[in-house]
Amino acid sequence: MKIKLASYLTFRLVELGISEVFGLPGDYNFKIVEAIEENKNISWIGSTNELNAGYAADGYARIKGYAAMVSTYGVGELSAMNAIAGSMAENVPVIKIVGIPNTKDIENRTLLHHNLDNADYHAFERAYSNIVETTAFLNKENAKSELDRIFEVMIKTKKPVYVAIPVDVCDVEVEVEYKKIVLKSKEENLNKAVDKIIELIEKSKKPLFIAGILANRFLAKETINDFLSKTAIPSCSFVRGMDIIQSNMKNYMGVYSAKLANKVCYDYMNSSDCIILAGCVLSDLNTMGFKYNFKLDDVVDIQPNSVSIKGERIDDVLIKDLLEALLEKISYISKENIVPEFGYKNIPVADENKLSMNYLYPRIQEFLRENDILITEVGLVPFGAIPMKFPCNVSVQNQMLWGSIGWATPCAFGCFMADKSRRTILITGDGSHQLTAQELSTMMRNKARPIIFVINNSGYTVERILCDNVDYDYNNIASWNYSMLPKVFKGDCYVASVKTNKEFDEVLSVIEKEQKERMCYIELFTDYLDIPSLAMNIVKHPEQLKK
Amino acid sequence: MKIKLASYLTFRLVELGISEVFGLPGDYNFKIVEAIEENKNISWIGSTNELNAGYAADGYARIKGYAAMVSTYGVGELSAMNAIAGSMAENVPVIKIVGIPNTKDIENRTLLHHNLDNADYHAFERAYSNIVETTAFLNKENAKSELDRIFEVMIKTKKPVYVAIPVDVCDVEVEVEYKKIVLKSKEENLNKAVDKIIELIEKSKKPLFIAGILANRFLAKETINDFLSKTAIPSCSFVRGMDIIQSNMKNYMGVYSAKLANKVCYDYMNSSDCIILAGCVLSDLNTMGFKYNFKLDDVVDIQPNSVSIKGERIDDVLIKDLLEALLEKISYISKENIVPEFGYKNIPVADENKLSMNYLYPRIQEFLRENDILITEVGLVPFGAIPMKFPCNVSVQNQMLWGSIGWATPCAFGCFMADKSRRTILITGDGSHQLTAQELSTMMRNKARPIIFVINNSGYTVERILCDNVDYDYNNIASWNYSMLPKVFKGDCYVASVKTNKEFDEVLSVIEKEQKERMCYIELFTDYLDIPSLAMNIVKHPEQLKK
Repeated sequence: MKIKLASYLTFRLVELGISEVFGLPGDYNFKIVEAIEENKNISWIGSTNELNAGYAADGYARIKGYAAMVSTYGVGELSAMNAIAGSMAENVPVIKIVGIPNTKDIENRTLLHHNLDNADYHAFERAYSNIVETTAFLNKENAKSELDRIFEVMIKTKKPVYVAIPVDVCDVEVEVEYKKIVLKSKEENLNKAVDKIIELIEKSKKPLFIAGILANRFLAKETINDFLSKTAIPSCSFVRGMDIIQSNMKNYMGVYSAKLANKVCYDYMNSSDCIILAGCVLSDLNTMGFKYNFKLDDVVDIQPNSVSIKGERIDDVLIKDLLEALLEKISYISKENIVPEFGYKNIPVADENKLSMNYLYPRIQEFLRENDILITEVGLVPFGAIPMKFPCNVSVQNQMLWGSIGWATPCAFGCFMADKSRRTILITGDGSHQLTAQELSTMMRNKARPIIFVINNSGYTVERILCDNVDYDYNNIASWNYSMLPKVFKGDCYVASVKTNKEFDEVLSVIEKEQKERMCYIELFTDYLDIPSLAMNIVKHPEQLKK
Repeated sequence: MKIKLASYLTFRLVELGISEVFGLPGDYNFKIVEAIEENKNISWIGSTNELNAGYAADGYARIKGYAAMVSTYGVGELSAMNAIAGSMAENVPVIKIVGIPNTKDIENRTLLHHNLDNADYHAFERAYSNIVETTAFLNKENAKSELDRIFEVMIKTKKPVYVAIPVDVCDVEVEVEYKKIVLKSKEENLNKAVDKIIELIEKSKKPLFIAGILANRFLAKETINDFLSKTAIPSCSFVRGMDIIQSNMKNYMGVYSAKLANKVCYDYMNSSDCIILAGCVLSDLNTMGFKYNFKLDDVVDIQPNSVSIKGERIDDVLIKDLLEALLEKISYISKENIVPEFGYKNIPVADENKLSMNYLYPRIQEFLRENDILITEVGLVPFGAIPMKFPCNVSVQNQMLWGSIGWATPCAFGCFMADKSRRTILITGDGSHQLTAQELSTMMRNKARPIIFVINNSGYTVERILCDNVDYDYNNIASWNYSMLPKVFKGDCYVASVKTNKEFDEVLSVIEKEQKERMCYIELFTDYLDIPSLAMNIVKHPEQLKK
């Protein structure tokens, strides 16, 4: 059966489980947007701008597996670049779809609007080629094969891909059939890796399993938990991937924090004679500044499509296959009985003092429930989340590699749309929130019901503590009446302002009920230098915080 | 004398007349921002996000000649790409400054935050190389020479340039001296061109002079007006450049609009035997869809650094030099006595009917005063401005090549900051305004006083008229209480909502006084299919507008 290429595109999206597409219409992408509107299995979500659409797609893919975003040529696609690059850095599979002018105008280099004055129609694809896994520029001949190719790359790498579709190519008739993408390991390599790893574990005295973000992206989370349940091997996670191992797993030690906190975990890692990394990326913020004492050549480093065992690399081994095979074959059971020290203990009393981070984060930990999605905006919020002990299957989203302020607000929208049955909870600072705040309007227009906490602390507090003077003027921001924003956007929303610990406690009780019916938007007033205790260790001039 | 590179950078910016720099701080650009704060001749303007900072810089450069914007590595720079590409398309000289990690980390490819996971430190510079005139990636050895080079390129081309500065390179000591950039034509080529052009004009019966946007960018506006004053040669302009020729110039016919309007101009162009283009770019929206009947090989095409005379190209001739030489040498005086037909005539009565475009734009024409800056957002607003007759030295900003919705609001802020003595008037649609609305907060924080008209017509009206069905859902947007926004941002602002022609008339009177003290923010409610009459000619399905 043949259908138009634009319809085929929507068909492929639906096959991946995508039921919402984010973006903005423009005169070169009408046919794409209309094809989405025409497909009953997929909905168009109009965003307020392309950066926000890109961030929402990123959040959506983090929860649902894949996402798509549509923009117009030039202006629209470039506005989304930071969001798509973030998906690249954070290994989130998003397909970036761009509607571009007609093939004939491209060939003739007609100087249509949304061009640079040289009418170089490949300039923006080239720009994108630096920040996505692959790009495709469709024409009437290659449309089907190129579209199939970028889907294959996205599915295999779980990274973003880019496709530019000329207006006329949307109407090209193509076969609906396509080659199913089967991902599997090379049997021989897999067996070899499994045997070697089991041998290392069995002869070790103190094995350590460390979970990282890529295990999540390549759907190995469940297998990891089964593996650790069976073996009781001591485990911990990095910041990126802190939600992979269930908090109550025997011998799970929480998030590795170097010497900053969690001494149990630090000491164990330093004495371990067999470290197994599963999907880890060793970047600065993920490792508390590269503060780990192992070398990659001495450990088992399981990556998405390969594994390195003490420096010997074995390719064509998929992380999920490898962990499943390990789970099946291993008979080792650890005799360790570690008493972990993570998780905020003894929630402080909800007194009438000014709301403080020392109350806020422990109280959030208490507020969290099974299956919640917690989005921690770039900056200091992750430092409040790292010490937490989470209920079962809480999903924690951060951006500890890319680190783009403003990401979290639209991301929370995308997360909510990906699974409306789960509570989506966003904690953001005011400085970050201002970059993308208008996406609140898209949330309410779509009846999304995230719980949003905006920490109003008068500026970029994370930068205050990293620069030479906490009072440098450039870290101040405009003062907003945040709690008035939902009214501007005319949405149904529970709004509250919180100034004391007690008020925060009370508002959390109200939210329990309100969040079932509508969005909750809570402004939290805190001191401009109040930071989570874990972050005290990264302050450049601690003496300036004491005044 | 030697100073640190970051200080030298601020010194060069001041030399270009830049006294405000837009941007956001980040941990890799602290030293750059601090150098700006330390230089008394230049101020730091913290924007709410990088796209808005880029648009504000674009507006600033349009009025002041040059602008600079600063962001951090990766996340910040990519968010600004659409704005900088817009400056490229529209030939606006902006220097994009990016603070990046230390040289040592770059050399070692350390996986610091704001990187893709391959730590390719040149990826974003490569992306930018597609949308700016040139890029520079500084190190300790090339810092001074590369910085000097990109300044030279920006000054010569009036296009944006990009520079990435590692943290440690900010402290490199460099000589303050630099080679002054002298732009001059090749005498011989200039004389040859002038003689040929004068000969063509003198032997022609109906010469026509057409002004385009590049004449503005290359500072030839005054010379053009002197030239037309002296010669009375019939003239018109394209949409991009509609503010170059003074409206009351003898034989000036307004904006060329093909067959859509302005028959006097259309007929004259069709009968002209000597067309002189000065700084024109022949793109779709600039020419009403390439609807002109001359060929470039038959005309005089004056470009910034060259001229083509009936197909013969002469290089190294600067537009301003050429026009000055023509002004000096020409003795031709046209005997034409054209009665132009541009300018809204007979302002309609301010009745109590719903505010309509047929009242709005004529009334805005009447409201405009000498030296005003008028920013017309992408979409239908330029179609309201094209027929206007402007007072002396009104500066009209549009983005008729790049066409990025959302540009105009931050652009208006940049225009105001570039010259606080002029009234800055912005007309934007609601769909566009939503993309960048938070920049209102930066305006008020900086006590900027633009006059802002937001046309609230429930969506992307320009797209409604260009697609197959004016009621397609994807052209609807979230409904906002725009007039509540200034309260959210806690600024001093005169706010009004207008529903009838009479109310608009009254509000304009109030604004006359209010704008001297504070920002004016006016929400204009109009019908969702009400469009400027000139735009009636581009409607895809006119029958749908009649219901």
